Amino acid sequence: MKLSRTFLPTLREVPADAVIVSHRLMMRSAMLRKLANGLFAYLPLGLRSFRKVENIVREEMDAIGALEIKPSVVVPGEIWKESGRWDTMGDGMLRVKNRLGNDFVISPTAEEAFTTLVRDELASYRQLPLTLYQINTKYRDEIRPRYGVMRGREFTMKDAYSWHTDDASLDMTYEAMGKAYRRVFKRCGLTVIPVRADTGAMGGTGSEEFMVESEIGDNTLILCRSCDYAANVEKAACKPDFAAPADLAAAQVAAARTPAIQKIPTPSVRTIEELCAFLKTDAGSFIKTLVYKAVNVETDLSAAPGCGKLALRSASADAPKTYPAAFFAVAIRGDLDVNETKLAAVLKASEVELASDADVERLTGAPLGFAGPVGLSGLPVVADESVTALSDAVTGGLASDLHFAHVAYGRDFQAWMVADVRVAKAGDACQSCGGELYEKKGNELGHIFKLGYKYTRSMKVSYLDEQGKAQVPTMGCYGIGVDRTLASIIEERHDDDGIVWPMTVAPYHVALVPIKYEGAMKEAADKLHAELEALGIEVLLDDRAERPGVKFKDADLIGIPLRVVIGDKNLPKVEVKARTDKDSRLVDAASAAAELAAIVRAELAVLEA
Amino acid sequence: MKLSRTFLPTLREVPADAVIVSHRLMMRSAMLRKLANGLFAYLPLGLRSFRKVENIVREEMDAIGALEIKPSVVVPGEIWKESGRWDTMGDGMLRVKNRLGNDFVISPTAEEAFTTLVRDELASYRQLPLTLYQINTKYRDEIRPRYGVMRGREFTMKDAYSWHTDDASLDMTYEAMGKAYRRVFKRCGLTVIPVRADTGAMGGTGSEEFMVESEIGDNTLILCRSCDYAANVEKAACKPDFAAPADLAAAQVAAARTPAIQKIPTPSVRTIEELCAFLKTDAGSFIKTLVYKAVNVETDLSAAPGCGKLALRSASADAPKTYPAAFFAVAIRGDLDVNETKLAAVLKASEVELASDADVERLTGAPLGFAGPVGLSGLPVVADESVTALSDAVTGGLASDLHFAHVAYGRDFQAWMVADVRVAKAGDACQSCGGELYEKKGNELGHIFKLGYKYTRSMKVSYLDEQGKAQVPTMGCYGIGVDRTLASIIEERHDDDGIVWPMTVAPYHVALVPIKYEGAMKEAADKLHAELEALGIEVLLDDRAERPGVKFKDADLIGIPLRVVIGDKNLPKVEVKARTDKDSRLVDAASAAAELAAIVRAELAVLEA
Repeated sequence: MKLSRTFLPTLREVPADAVIVSHRLMMRSAMLRKLANGLFAYLPLGLRSFRKVENIVREEMDAIGALEIKPSVVVPGEIWKESGRWDTMGDGMLRVKNRLGNDFVISPTAEEAFTTLVRDELASYRQLPLTLYQINTKYRDEIRPRYGVMRGREFTMKDAYSWHTDDASLDMTYEAMGKAYRRVFKRCGLTVIPVRADTGAMGGTGSEEFMVESEIGDNTLILCRSCDYAANVEKAACKPDFAAPADLAAAQVAAARTPAIQKIPTPSVRTIEELCAFLKTDAGSFIKTLVYKAVNVETDLSAAPGCGKLALRSASADAPKTYPAAFFAVAIRGDLDVNETKLAAVLKASEVELASDADVERLTGAPLGFAGPVGLSGLPVVADESVTALSDAVTGGLASDLHFAHVAYGRDFQAWMVADVRVAKAGDACQSCGGELYEKKGNELGHIFKLGYKYTRSMKVSYLDEQGKAQVPTMGCYGIGVDRTLASIIEERHDDDGIVWPMTVAPYHVALVPIKYEGAMKEAADKLHAELEALGIEVLLDDRAERPGVKFKDADLIGIPLRVVIGDKNLPKVEVKARTDKDSRLVDAASAAAELAAIVRAELAVLEA
Repeated sequence: MKLSRTFLPTLREVPADAVIVSHRLMMRSAMLRKLANGLFAYLPLGLRSFRKVENIVREEMDAIGALEIKPSVVVPGEIWKESGRWDTMGDGMLRVKNRLGNDFVISPTAEEAFTTLVRDELASYRQLPLTLYQINTKYRDEIRPRYGVMRGREFTMKDAYSWHTDDASLDMTYEAMGKAYRRVFKRCGLTVIPVRADTGAMGGTGSEEFMVESEIGDNTLILCRSCDYAANVEKAACKPDFAAPADLAAAQVAAARTPAIQKIPTPSVRTIEELCAFLKTDAGSFIKTLVYKAVNVETDLSAAPGCGKLALRSASADAPKTYPAAFFAVAIRGDLDVNETKLAAVLKASEVELASDADVERLTGAPLGFAGPVGLSGLPVVADESVTALSDAVTGGLASDLHFAHVAYGRDFQAWMVADVRVAKAGDACQSCGGELYEKKGNELGHIFKLGYKYTRSMKVSYLDEQGKAQVPTMGCYGIGVDRTLASIIEERHDDDGIVWPMTVAPYHVALVPIKYEGAMKEAADKLHAELEALGIEVLLDDRAERPGVKFKDADLIGIPLRVVIGDKNLPKVEVKARTDKDSRLVDAASAAAELAAIVRAELAVLEA
């Protein structure tokens, strides 16, 4: 391709709203232009790289037997009402009424559409397992779209969905997806951090996020310096910083050496900090007690304190029965924080939030700041594991200006449930290897997830098993953001001069830069151009009447992996330089095409191995 | 691909709402499923053929130097307000307000988006000509979507836009597009009728529609039996069925032999039919006079009768000045009809419609049914050419129950303008060759159009010419409906058993059908499968445990061009049959792959020649 025949309006200036590197470079290199806040157009150069990422994803999906389909982008609101997400998706989902008054949704994701399609076709267990995917336009109505295509409103997502007769089959597809995702990112030259959350707190539900490190990341990751442990802070585990969580009997043995519980008047003392100062001790000696309201709780509360009058309800005949709302007291060591995601998971609740001040006072019978587990009868107590190791602690006294000292778990109070509900943080020890944990900001590029029966139940999907009996299939879903993956490659691979593309995603493999596009230089450039194209190498020939410096700067900016400078003084040799090299070397023009093709193929082979 | 590994839920029953062949076959062959009225999902088989059409379009666009970009599907309402089409696009354009109250449009077409992008980048004449295109999702809110993807709400369109410094450059791109479109349809195995409208009535603006014959077509075409003349009835011309349109002098000479004009009382006679019966003559001897209201008239009316008080207005500084509304009397021979598209074109009006009864009576001073050109002073008279040849006609008498006989054009009245404004119809003579014209219903698959300055002026696009002076570029636009093209291939190529794909668009080239997928037949089928794939031939191997009859029916239904039956009794030979052949022939299994590959390549070569 000759540069004069494409459309490459590169910029020297950076648009004011482009604050991250990938956005700046995509604008400057004329990959991208803005149509409105969060809405972009890929220009010819950007579209080439975009399609390469898209095709890498497509090839890896096809390789594991996933089948591509193409549903519409605008889908009927009815199917969202059926799944129940019409009400729960919030304002991020763009809804539209058409001229006939029918509700439509500009798809933000497609569990409903795919489930609808499969529901109508699924007859027999012989059709399962089945994995379908699309690579298609999605829309989320971000309030503050920013960072270019990293957080835009319209974007392209590969989303796959699978259906299975049993968990073993779902596991196999889930694992195959995990491997395919690793290959996708490797082929894109990206370093991703796979973050699993399929053990422990999540109760067996599988989920793995593929993250890239990013200073503007939406997620906080907890990573281990010594092993490959990585988790989203929302779900991260850590090794207890005490011997081990104690069972009730062991706790009672330890409590035997503790002095009897003692009331301590604590006028005007409410926070942990004030209490530490007042008692001249540290937060690790306190038991902090927080009251949470949980919504749609699946856990059996029939024997839980204060829950006797709660009624179970069900949204539909197929949906599991849940308690619409229930309150819990969470006791945790004073220097730790409660992780709400973990708490919701152990309670099997769809959501948890701190109870209102009025609810706290009503349920504990004490003013704010004096809640504690000792003598608390109106609420189930969830004790974080850290609490079970405390045999001589301070707690709130359930009355104004009162605390208890010498409180021992197992002797002075028991918990309705013991669980790991603490936030893991930098400096904690890795649960797997004991190494030091640290934090990073990350952006999610992909996510694979075992959905289970959520959609197949609410949308009434069934098939006939070998015995001819109707069964509900289990389901998985698997997404990759194409635009975000493309932008992340630039975030990871750039220097002060511009983008440093991996060979697999580069818009062109080779940039040909004649010092002047005339005479012998034009002849040599045209010849090399033709030879390289005949070898299947993608070439951009800079045939503009610009100064060499301008051409070099643009070649570096747009990040073509190999550059060939064709100048009068070196002919019949040409200068070859990799984008990452400092210096160029002279190569015979006659053999340059073969040599360049060999380099391109070798680099592709390494990335695609 | 093994059939058991894809997703091919073919149907024996036809869905009730599928009334045309392509819709029925796309549903039955599991190419397509409905998500809602006018919204569809392509299943794996359908998507393969869809992508092939898409790629044929892409290759032909790239071949003429058009550059692919990818703007968003959801675009800001502001750019539609800027062009003025926010108000004129009607309810077919799906508008949506997001959570912040901003207006967006789900693109029905993209003149605005492309013009916005180019406006911001266009600096110099050196960047022109420039042709950009996308192949992307579009949405039109059809009130009654039907005929499957032939008239759906969401669809995929290739739309290209070009910008030029002058008409000669626009002409070149327009011609190249016309050739590219012919190649696209030829490669798809489609018979299209190119319908030009770039001469005569349209005043030099170029436009060509690519139609396919269809009994459910939106358009009526006028075609010549003797030459390749083809036109949309809205714009079709025909040879006058009289000697030649007379000029005023010739008409006056002819009128010399006509008796003097005569008043005829015609009580209770209003329609042409009643008048014919009353006067015992035929409609061809009458001059019919209709009053039209025209909107946004560009033609100079300063000297037109009754228009003295009309004021010119302009929507913006750059827009041409027009008369917001004006009335005209159109005189035409009684057996002919007025073509409103032609009338609007000769008046340079954006629209014309019949005036209301009240306006007719006010402007002619006569009751309905008695309008006529003789003595009509308050309105400009537009005479169809047919009227100029009438030297002894009957007309309305501009008073109740009165007609005139012996009316001669040129003697008894003159016209403000003479033009061809008649509807051409089957049986008329071709303007080009005199052959007989006939009618067909057609569907539009593609359209190329010289837009001129409409968008570049209203959206203020400019570039600097060689003298450094700001100039407005002229523009063209070029669309192809991908879904409609795909469906039209099926409409043209099918039989009672199913689809008959051309090799270029077939989802697979070869269907392998072992009588039973076991033993020697399985071995031979697997071997042939592997050999064909190694040769780059796309194969579908029916490995299901179904009766041979079911497999044959499905292979015919989905329309694979070549079928190979592998049966015990014929091995080591296999039966090869083209979809269009009646009988199969035996071929050595050992050489079958090479032979099949040769047939596939030969058929591709013919279509792509």
